[in-house]
Amino acid sequence: MKEYEVVIIGGGPAGLTAGLYTSRARLSSLLIEKGLVGGQIVNAEQVENFPGFPHGISGLQLGESMHQQATKYGLETTTAEVTGIELHGDKKVIVTAEGNSIAKAVIIASGSERQKLGIPGEEEFTGRGVSYCATCDGALFGEQPVAVVGGGNAALTEALELVRFVSRVSIIHRRHQLRATRILQERALANPKIEVRWNTVIDEIEGTDVVRRLKLHDVVTGEKSTLEVAGVFVSVGLKPNTDFVKSLLPLDETGHIATNQRLETEIPGILAAGDVRRDSVRQAITAAGDGATAAFYAEKFLSA
Amino acid sequence: MKEYEVVIIGGGPAGLTAGLYTSRARLSSLLIEKGLVGGQIVNAEQVENFPGFPHGISGLQLGESMHQQATKYGLETTTAEVTGIELHGDKKVIVTAEGNSIAKAVIIASGSERQKLGIPGEEEFTGRGVSYCATCDGALFGEQPVAVVGGGNAALTEALELVRFVSRVSIIHRRHQLRATRILQERALANPKIEVRWNTVIDEIEGTDVVRRLKLHDVVTGEKSTLEVAGVFVSVGLKPNTDFVKSLLPLDETGHIATNQRLETEIPGILAAGDVRRDSVRQAITAAGDGATAAFYAEKFLSA
Repeated sequence: MKEYEVVIIGGGPAGLTAGLYTSRARLSSLLIEKGLVGGQIVNAEQVENFPGFPHGISGLQLGESMHQQATKYGLETTTAEVTGIELHGDKKVIVTAEGNSIAKAVIIASGSERQKLGIPGEEEFTGRGVSYCATCDGALFGEQPVAVVGGGNAALTEALELVRFVSRVSIIHRRHQLRATRILQERALANPKIEVRWNTVIDEIEGTDVVRRLKLHDVVTGEKSTLEVAGVFVSVGLKPNTDFVKSLLPLDETGHIATNQRLETEIPGILAAGDVRRDSVRQAITAAGDGATAAFYAEKFLSA
Repeated sequence: MKEYEVVIIGGGPAGLTAGLYTSRARLSSLLIEKGLVGGQIVNAEQVENFPGFPHGISGLQLGESMHQQATKYGLETTTAEVTGIELHGDKKVIVTAEGNSIAKAVIIASGSERQKLGIPGEEEFTGRGVSYCATCDGALFGEQPVAVVGGGNAALTEALELVRFVSRVSIIHRRHQLRATRILQERALANPKIEVRWNTVIDEIEGTDVVRRLKLHDVVTGEKSTLEVAGVFVSVGLKPNTDFVKSLLPLDETGHIATNQRLETEIPGILAAGDVRRDSVRQAITAAGDGATAAFYAEKFLSA
């Protein structure tokens, strides 16, 4: 079992920035990521709100740049899914199916995943019309009608991306108003290819080999209807990846980790950064800032 | 008096990112900066630890990019020094010598300034050997000996920058160990042109038309000595620019503003971001993250 001063769990903007800072601080550091390094940002075709890039940057390139920058100062990275953290005195053992590591300090930056609807047809048609990423799959639905489920920034961003490919986007939203910021609402509502189905939920996704239609009902009137679509993009929120610490750290009702302003959890030497922590606003730039803050206070902890 | 939804005080990474987010959110926004937009970062010749730039970026360019990106979405910027904030019901009046503005929400991102030593000769020789910025003035001391005062990251960064220009750098540090991160300590202590005067303070800066020597004393032995230098770079810390709110908001003993994790102060609609807030780790990336967080919760406040 290899021992590090800092183990970072998660390779999105929070984890990569934490790794940049800890490795620049000459702390031996390992970053463990279960999928692609870069995190959710790599799914964004164009990132306009990461400061420093006035003309925007693709999410993929931003993730790769951060990765390259962090490894330049000696950060090690490995691919594995962390299943738990065990405490042995002051040491923390980070458990994965590929083997364990030991750390004096741990930065949890494991991010979040798309929430699912949990309705009939969703799992069956995933990859065959049901998608969680317009950037990834939008082009597959050329000139056909699709639906987007949700009313937040992510949902409207998906809808606005999809209109470039598809014939019509129906936004299915369970409430009578959107949660998204004004600029996105204005853009979406002004687009002739976008319609909003207010107060509406999907009961079932139906199809043959691929998605064909949605069974809807209006939560106010109770009226049922059917909507013909070739695809449905689910964008109803994010679930923090914190299952592996639920027996170790108290989580709030949404599964987020409570920290103080130094991003310390209640266990000395375990910090949380980015989407996983309570009150995070879930932006790449805030996650990156969190990573630097967590690295700073991890270094303080190690030198205390 | 023009009225805005959000007024942002300060044009460093925190203020510019706040402005990028509020203006992208279609909130009418004014940013007030007393000096050059970009903040302290513009003094950094090369920024290596802002994620997304694996080959580094000059501080000037980073500041300009952030400025360009924020104004692209409609952020107004103006040059003035804010001298106070007055509350009129829900409205906030931001007072400057160049006129006042009204805002529903205020984001204080006024940053910090270099702390002075407060010793004889310091003010007299400022600009004639006494400097607070190696990047700005280092090249003026070609092949002459200089001193750096301080023991933190900023001081060692200054020292390492100066060795490219000068014949010798003496780090004057009042303690027996440095506060800087290991990577900087290793680099500085390994450099043959850098020496550290431990447990030492400067009593006086002496010179003729320009700085000639420092009068030192050892705080442990009490021994006095003289050090011949052509310049002295003061790097003993930062003072938050919060004088203009000291009668409005409670400040901690170092002059920083207390916030909760949403960066809200105790006055509804007034938030603080970046170096001015307590627990900030004072990095460009954490300030930028703060700016986005403050903008997000300012928008929540306005739509509540």
